[in-house]
Amino acid sequence: MIDLNNSVGIVETKYFSFDEKINLENGLDFGPITVAYETYGELNEDKSNAILVLHALSGDAHAAGYHSEQDKKPGWWDDMIGPDKAFDTNKYFIISSNFLGGCKGTTGPSSVNTETGKSYGISFPVITIEDMVKVQKKLVDFFGIKKLLSVAGGSMGGMQALEWSIQYPEMVQSCVVIASASRLSAQNIAFNEVGRNAIISDPNWNNGNYYDGENPATGLAIARMIGHITYLSEESMHQKFGRRLQDKLKPDFNFDVNFQVESYLRHQGQSFVDRFDANSYLFITKAMDYFDLHQKYGSLAHAFKGSKSKFLFITFSTDWLFPPEELKNTARTLMSLEKEVTYCNIDSPYGHDSFLLEVEDQTKIVKNFLKGVCV
Amino acid sequence: MIDLNNSVGIVETKYFSFDEKINLENGLDFGPITVAYETYGELNEDKSNAILVLHALSGDAHAAGYHSEQDKKPGWWDDMIGPDKAFDTNKYFIISSNFLGGCKGTTGPSSVNTETGKSYGISFPVITIEDMVKVQKKLVDFFGIKKLLSVAGGSMGGMQALEWSIQYPEMVQSCVVIASASRLSAQNIAFNEVGRNAIISDPNWNNGNYYDGENPATGLAIARMIGHITYLSEESMHQKFGRRLQDKLKPDFNFDVNFQVESYLRHQGQSFVDRFDANSYLFITKAMDYFDLHQKYGSLAHAFKGSKSKFLFITFSTDWLFPPEELKNTARTLMSLEKEVTYCNIDSPYGHDSFLLEVEDQTKIVKNFLKGVCV
Repeated sequence: MIDLNNSVGIVETKYFSFDEKINLENGLDFGPITVAYETYGELNEDKSNAILVLHALSGDAHAAGYHSEQDKKPGWWDDMIGPDKAFDTNKYFIISSNFLGGCKGTTGPSSVNTETGKSYGISFPVITIEDMVKVQKKLVDFFGIKKLLSVAGGSMGGMQALEWSIQYPEMVQSCVVIASASRLSAQNIAFNEVGRNAIISDPNWNNGNYYDGENPATGLAIARMIGHITYLSEESMHQKFGRRLQDKLKPDFNFDVNFQVESYLRHQGQSFVDRFDANSYLFITKAMDYFDLHQKYGSLAHAFKGSKSKFLFITFSTDWLFPPEELKNTARTLMSLEKEVTYCNIDSPYGHDSFLLEVEDQTKIVKNFLKGVCV
Repeated sequence: MIDLNNSVGIVETKYFSFDEKINLENGLDFGPITVAYETYGELNEDKSNAILVLHALSGDAHAAGYHSEQDKKPGWWDDMIGPDKAFDTNKYFIISSNFLGGCKGTTGPSSVNTETGKSYGISFPVITIEDMVKVQKKLVDFFGIKKLLSVAGGSMGGMQALEWSIQYPEMVQSCVVIASASRLSAQNIAFNEVGRNAIISDPNWNNGNYYDGENPATGLAIARMIGHITYLSEESMHQKFGRRLQDKLKPDFNFDVNFQVESYLRHQGQSFVDRFDANSYLFITKAMDYFDLHQKYGSLAHAFKGSKSKFLFITFSTDWLFPPEELKNTARTLMSLEKEVTYCNIDSPYGHDSFLLEVEDQTKIVKNFLKGVCV
């Protein structure tokens, strides 16, 4: 049985649409756009208690609670969002927005282009983190919220939060950035590129036109397997699987699954295929690759010059996808600009996935930080 | 122009065949076997100056010198093997042996099975590092060498060297193990598994029967791209490519190559396809995955109990494929057994590839170590 008392309870995903086109970073105008979102808690009268929560690559708007009593799992950040949790729904109004380009309700490459009556496929525009933030701004405006108490996210969600603090300085009182970075490294781009290559090389991909046929499931599964290796630390892989064999006492000297870690990866790859769109994977990883606040604004100092936000940066000791050093350096830059920054590096064995797993420490840190944000 | 003076000069790959079957670790008998090898320097009269050099995953017997004056590149370890080099051909007789299962002259899955008249494909037996070493032993016997002055290798070559010191303790006076490990980690297995998956998922792979048709080039290229990410450190990728764009000033907002690192990986993937067999990639990575001296011999201490070798272990600070800590721990075990062990961790930015690049430090260390090996 699910525990509704320790959660925001039964929730539903809602949709907000606007016809007005937005001007994308690549110069094109794009619309209409639908945004999938969920909210938890109550917006107070002066609309001063709203926190925007942003998800990572494969996430969705369903961040907390359950969609039905039959659900086996709650939303992806249920450990952190709910009554008395880090993002306390007794105090705050949480908006969780699914980003542009995904496949979880917000307009993306699998959506139907109203002009052609067909899915966009790769005719979908190449978007950026800034474009995603622009769409989120429309959603926040729709609620009539002038100032967000906080914008928060882990991994790619953290990149969106950083971009929020730069693009809409008057609207962002605080910014919680977890296991993230101010730009993607060459190694990050390399992993993304191999994943994209696996998708594009899959004959079923068919130049992105597969919505009426077979999905490029093989390519997408390989991309996801690569991703999963980068989400875990060597240490956590060792603890979780070590060199243990899968349902056998001796290696069987063939190319079937021999080791537990192989079984885990194949399972992760396969199950992802059922819930994610390969074209979305291409567009989202590309948006990540392009993310570079240093280059875009001339320098990191220049990027954050006008920001009026308080910042909380959380990193994890074994996160090698987004190593602690990166956000630490970003924190240093913000300090040199005399911005208020709290930087915490949590000692954790779980690698990048720590932001979903290290609940206790993060709860203390986030709660304390949000208390200090003037309302 | 190539510099023949600073090398072993023009060399050729030779072949040694034996009909007698060898008993593989999986229980099967396998033969006949041909071994591709090269030698550099002169074997002295009492055959006491021989060093066996063993290569890594994608290497071959051509470790030093040139095959012709038209060659653009020398053998893969030419920086380390030659007159006055680390493995000094003025003093030592170097044997470089291509391993079982590869595609560079020694019997492997692309070889013709004399019983069927067709390439083995995946009917080739699943082999192990021990099996490779067994074949190398035949080659050393063929030279009439009773005792090797040293067995040396980097990466997977180091694993073979370790296995030599265990399997043939009377024959191995010293053992040089570079950027290697006493077993593969869960993360190592995971990367190998994704690469194998990419190959097996390629429709051209055709259950290993592609020698009369199209190669599974797409799958093999992806496997190699993944490999290349693991051979470089984050730091060296940053230094080498950073976020620099490939032949353009601005990102072009499409899925072509945008960043230099993408171009590099695609090039590495493509060029590998021309020189390597996909089935060999499957069998060799599997042999690596199975490599675990702890499990195989009950414990690491038990594995090396009977070894009579002096050991030199070299690791590199940024090698995250085979982190220094692993060989350091192996060195500790050997010390507790009162074996002679020299352990050096070289501070290098180049990741796993350091064993091919950090010539100067390695030369000093290896030269000095070999001097101390009693002849």
